[in-house]
Amino acid sequence: MSEAILAPTIVSEGEFAGWKNWAHDAFETRAGPFFYRHDDAEGTVCAFRAEPRHMNGGGFMHGGCMMTFADFSLFSIAHREMDGHWGVTVNLSGDFLAAIRAGQLVEARGEVTRGGGKTIFVRGLVTADGTPALSFTGIIRKVSSR
Amino acid sequence: MSEAILAPTIVSEGEFAGWKNWAHDAFETRAGPFFYRHDDAEGTVCAFRAEPRHMNGGGFMHGGCMMTFADFSLFSIAHREMDGHWGVTVNLSGDFLAAIRAGQLVEARGEVTRGGGKTIFVRGLVTADGTPALSFTGIIRKVSSR
Amino acid sequence: MSEAILAPTIVSEGEFAGWKNWAHDAFETRAGPFFYRHDDAEGTVCAFRAEPRHMNGGGFMHGGCMMTFADFSLFSIAHREMDGHWGVTVNLSGDFLAAIRAGQLVEARGEVTRGGGKTIFVRGLVTADGTPALSFTGIIRKVSSR
Amino acid sequence: MSEAILAPTIVSEGEFAGWKNWAHDAFETRAGPFFYRHDDAEGTVCAFRAEPRHMNGGGFMHGGCMMTFADFSLFSIAHREMDGHWGVTVNLSGDFLAAIRAGQLVEARGEVTRGGGKTIFVRGLVTADGTPALSFTGIIRKVSSR
Repeated sequence: MSEAILAPTIVSEGEFAGWKNWAHDAFETRAGPFFYRHDDAEGTVCAFRAEPRHMNGGGFMHGGCMMTFADFSLFSIAHREMDGHWGVTVNLSGDFLAAIRAGQLVEARGEVTRGGGKTIFVRGLVTADGTPALSFTGIIRKVSSR
Repeated sequence: MSEAILAPTIVSEGEFAGWKNWAHDAFETRAGPFFYRHDDAEGTVCAFRAEPRHMNGGGFMHGGCMMTFADFSLFSIAHREMDGHWGVTVNLSGDFLAAIRAGQLVEARGEVTRGGGKTIFVRGLVTADGTPALSFTGIIRKVSSR
Repeated sequence: MSEAILAPTIVSEGEFAGWKNWAHDAFETRAGPFFYRHDDAEGTVCAFRAEPRHMNGGGFMHGGCMMTFADFSLFSIAHREMDGHWGVTVNLSGDFLAAIRAGQLVEARGEVTRGGGKTIFVRGLVTADGTPALSFTGIIRKVSSR
Repeated sequence: MSEAILAPTIVSEGEFAGWKNWAHDAFETRAGPFFYRHDDAEGTVCAFRAEPRHMNGGGFMHGGCMMTFADFSLFSIAHREMDGHWGVTVNLSGDFLAAIRAGQLVEARGEVTRGGGKTIFVRGLVTADGTPALSFTGIIRKVSSR
């Protein structure tokens, strides 16, 4: 199970000023932080700047950091489908396409492949400076908003 | 791509004194830290203690934390198969079975379903106080040890 | 979505006499047929004999045949959890470990990693003459029995 | 492991006259048959007409039929990347979005998310009369062409 959907925070400063995230999320804040915004032309865009703290012992981004960003992106892409409900991740799967280095701009874009019910299906692509780095799919199950 | 295989560190203190991990791994250390040991009876056992910093906004463990632990476990379970090579994660997939709360003992056990070549297949199960919480599969590709 | 759960048929002849399957399933019968039995010691065992008609152009078993057997096995392993409900596959994922040749005995064994609710999680392993050939995970969602 | 890449056959008659497939593939021919064509505007398009023989006991398309078509589509989408090599499926994963009924036109479109090496990553979407029915990802490993 994964993060619950609460009201997002608007970021006030830095490279991603004006973007949103869930600042109350202890793990996400320390693992990232990650950011998202809704763009009328592009839809939901998620992003963060790769820093040394996101790297593994080999000097490229840890797979767990990429999957954490994918999980964040999963809920950001599905945010409008959730309409106030909490949600839990049922499945998250990732194909690792390329390494990500410190300093690169990491972005995620995706789409809801099936919504409208209690089970929401998403697929997305994480890029680093525009190069595909992680292809992911995820399934969210809505749970009671209480 | 995911963590590279380097020499592990032996933990000197705390609940997991005597266990091993990759202390040079910046993301893993901050996301966890996580620990593993090889047990002749049980094989590889990976573990950490769930703390508030691993939780999401809903008060249970973040899916990204669980997947980061799964990625750590993937390499720990495959460690003997790697025989000094670096490895990258090709695919990591997780089914989320149950929520994990702060204070629980989180463990992972698994098996190499196919080894012997450059592509290593692993499956594992993460438990919280013994209850299954994440079923995962992963594929590692060995890369040059240089 | 995948097969619905109906009353199974008991096979009357051949290598798998006494085993069960869903003979009313048009695709499964033509793709397989596949068979299962419940064994008190082993739990659910699924099996079929690899024949030339299951092979691809390269002379080994088609990945789609292996995934169809995995989907059959998914529902066989979960059969007792379904207690009369219909079910649909939500996700099916497979890691291909080894080739299967005509003449080999193909078996699948697995476990329900999370049951008790409307979403059932399963993992399993397909073997050919005892050698692991496909590691799979699947998620079933129960639907109304009406 | 999955189908090997050989020279495709051009279909001479029926709804898909002029399309291609691998007619020497025993399982694929019986499970489908399935068809593909390369379109300069759309890229690779795969298709078949859902018939009663593709259905399960519940009266909708068997998940194994959908995964077999996904495996076929995986290789069709990657066909140009294979440049004469044989390939094996390493992983195939599917999210089941909607049921497919007899009579519907089933199509698959997708993209190579990472190519250029020996490991080829693909993602695709299967639709039925234009409605998303299966979201899939697959990984192919090239093997020696001799």
